Amino acid sequence: MTENKWESYVRKVVPYTPGEQPKNNNVVKLNTNENPYPPCPSVRELLDKFDVSQMRLYPAPDSEILVNAIAERYGLKSSQIFVGVGSDDVISMAFMTFFGSDKPVLFPDITYSFYDVWADVYRIPYKTCPLNQDFTINPDDYKTENGGIIFPNPNAPTGVLESVEMIEDIVKSNPDSVVIIDEAYIDFAGDGTSCLPLIQKYNNLLVVQTYSKSRSMAGMRIGFAMGNEKLIKYMNDVKFSVNSYTMNTVTQLCGAESMKNEKYFTETVNKIIKTRERSKLRLAELGFRFTDSKSNFIFASPSKKSAQYIFSELKKRGIFVRYWDKFVICDYLRISIGTDNEMDRLFNALEEILNG
Amino acid sequence: MTENKWESYVRKVVPYTPGEQPKNNNVVKLNTNENPYPPCPSVRELLDKFDVSQMRLYPAPDSEILVNAIAERYGLKSSQIFVGVGSDDVISMAFMTFFGSDKPVLFPDITYSFYDVWADVYRIPYKTCPLNQDFTINPDDYKTENGGIIFPNPNAPTGVLESVEMIEDIVKSNPDSVVIIDEAYIDFAGDGTSCLPLIQKYNNLLVVQTYSKSRSMAGMRIGFAMGNEKLIKYMNDVKFSVNSYTMNTVTQLCGAESMKNEKYFTETVNKIIKTRERSKLRLAELGFRFTDSKSNFIFASPSKKSAQYIFSELKKRGIFVRYWDKFVICDYLRISIGTDNEMDRLFNALEEILNG
Repeated sequence: MTENKWESYVRKVVPYTPGEQPKNNNVVKLNTNENPYPPCPSVRELLDKFDVSQMRLYPAPDSEILVNAIAERYGLKSSQIFVGVGSDDVISMAFMTFFGSDKPVLFPDITYSFYDVWADVYRIPYKTCPLNQDFTINPDDYKTENGGIIFPNPNAPTGVLESVEMIEDIVKSNPDSVVIIDEAYIDFAGDGTSCLPLIQKYNNLLVVQTYSKSRSMAGMRIGFAMGNEKLIKYMNDVKFSVNSYTMNTVTQLCGAESMKNEKYFTETVNKIIKTRERSKLRLAELGFRFTDSKSNFIFASPSKKSAQYIFSELKKRGIFVRYWDKFVICDYLRISIGTDNEMDRLFNALEEILNG
Repeated sequence: MTENKWESYVRKVVPYTPGEQPKNNNVVKLNTNENPYPPCPSVRELLDKFDVSQMRLYPAPDSEILVNAIAERYGLKSSQIFVGVGSDDVISMAFMTFFGSDKPVLFPDITYSFYDVWADVYRIPYKTCPLNQDFTINPDDYKTENGGIIFPNPNAPTGVLESVEMIEDIVKSNPDSVVIIDEAYIDFAGDGTSCLPLIQKYNNLLVVQTYSKSRSMAGMRIGFAMGNEKLIKYMNDVKFSVNSYTMNTVTQLCGAESMKNEKYFTETVNKIIKTRERSKLRLAELGFRFTDSKSNFIFASPSKKSAQYIFSELKKRGIFVRYWDKFVICDYLRISIGTDNEMDRLFNALEEILNG
């Protein structure tokens, strides 16, 4: 095809490839770290009561109801909360807002695969820091000159949790950079693992969480950032320069409703943690090596057959896990934690594949 | 407050101020060009049938159901449609994708107030072209060297419609730039006014429309762009580099559902057009001058009292219209077309204010 002149001005990027969303409902979907349980039951009641004629009006641009519900749950002021269309929207907005230096932004070499994509699309220089052999972070790597720091905790796709003390050390060592901790999976890591309390002490720390995992609402697209009021105001200024109305009315209401039901949330999270720990035992029996995941997935390396082979054999049997054909992590499968029944289907299939 | 070093790397912007969203339901809200009628009734049935447990899953990243419904309605291929979180998301993404030249992007001096905000936030050079005295566009202004062109048709906040022939002339004269026509209000302009058919002939033309006005769904956030497959692919590549899952599941389903009900859509649009034409007669009687608006608002200048005075007097009476304290347009009010009852409340209030 001939190239038109206007194409020379086009922002050319290698787009991120999301995990497959198979349309067949019969599959066991353990490939995108979704929650196997539905959102809290009162969300259905909320939809029943929702006055559809409200759809004709623009949503509240400040997402007040949603922001207030999050603030109340975490004991923060509403001015310390930023909401977006999933944590991808929140973090991408944070890249645009905070990473305007010409020094490189630092993140691990094995991590959430969107960070380098955002850096590329916004033309932000970056440098990746190699993880240790056991997939832990070396804090010294983050004490060199930089234009910002980001990593998930627990890390993805490894599931490895770093301590609050180690994160505080990094935040404290970098008063001139914004440090973003992406806590997408923190609710599966147990009490006292979130570095949220540190935002009251350090004005350069932004903590990002999401409704997509522990809150069973990946389909509604809600992420949020928590930080000091100055950080949040800067993000809102940029956000309001791109799109005033990103959070639709139904999403705002469903998100606020589900944030109120702490009992359901805790029960669901605990069920997943229990299934995760049981799954670790079974995977060990099947000869897998894996990190001690504190998230809702296990990053596991098989011993008898290759990860790629097992990935495609599972797929033939209607079981989807995540596999990356990339150096180091190509020996691993990332397996999301489903229901006990789904995990049993997985283990039966693995037995068949490994002993077949 | 002392400035932290990290603040020197922050993208500083003057955010756009959206029209007020008063929380009191008793007001007459004619300030954000919302549709006074609810979305088509089957949207309620769709919500009733919706399986809430689906919320736990990520939405279809390609928004297939929604894209297909739009494609079918406009007789296009699905690969010619891009969807986003309102037309603000769509156009902002188009700025990022297509306006990477160092030549200025051109748009009218009086127009939708987000264009210069996007140019600023993405650091894109731009030049505004003065409208003629009667608020029409001078096509010759758009035949100089440029890095892209954008304007709404009908224009906002003037309501003035330009002909398809004039737009074709501009598109044809600029084979090296992408030309974006923002048709947010085109459904109120009557048959044969959209330049959509031109996308089959010119690969540098992108036509943007929205669910927020004629389709009564501002609260759900759906905008879409139509163009040749190459333009759409470039936009999708950038979009998938920012956020794979922008369109949530409920929005996708509601948007597809409402696109199918052509009869309800036509009836609603025709009611608004009828009210608009009646409103023009009443405004003329009240001494207002205005353009022959082809949109769902009237841009009107009072003769007896100042626009600013009338704006604040209306507000005291619970009637919200839009006013900008900016050169040239500070003599005008932008009045959205509401129901006949709402317009009667407006006219009664205007009589009282003007004769008081």
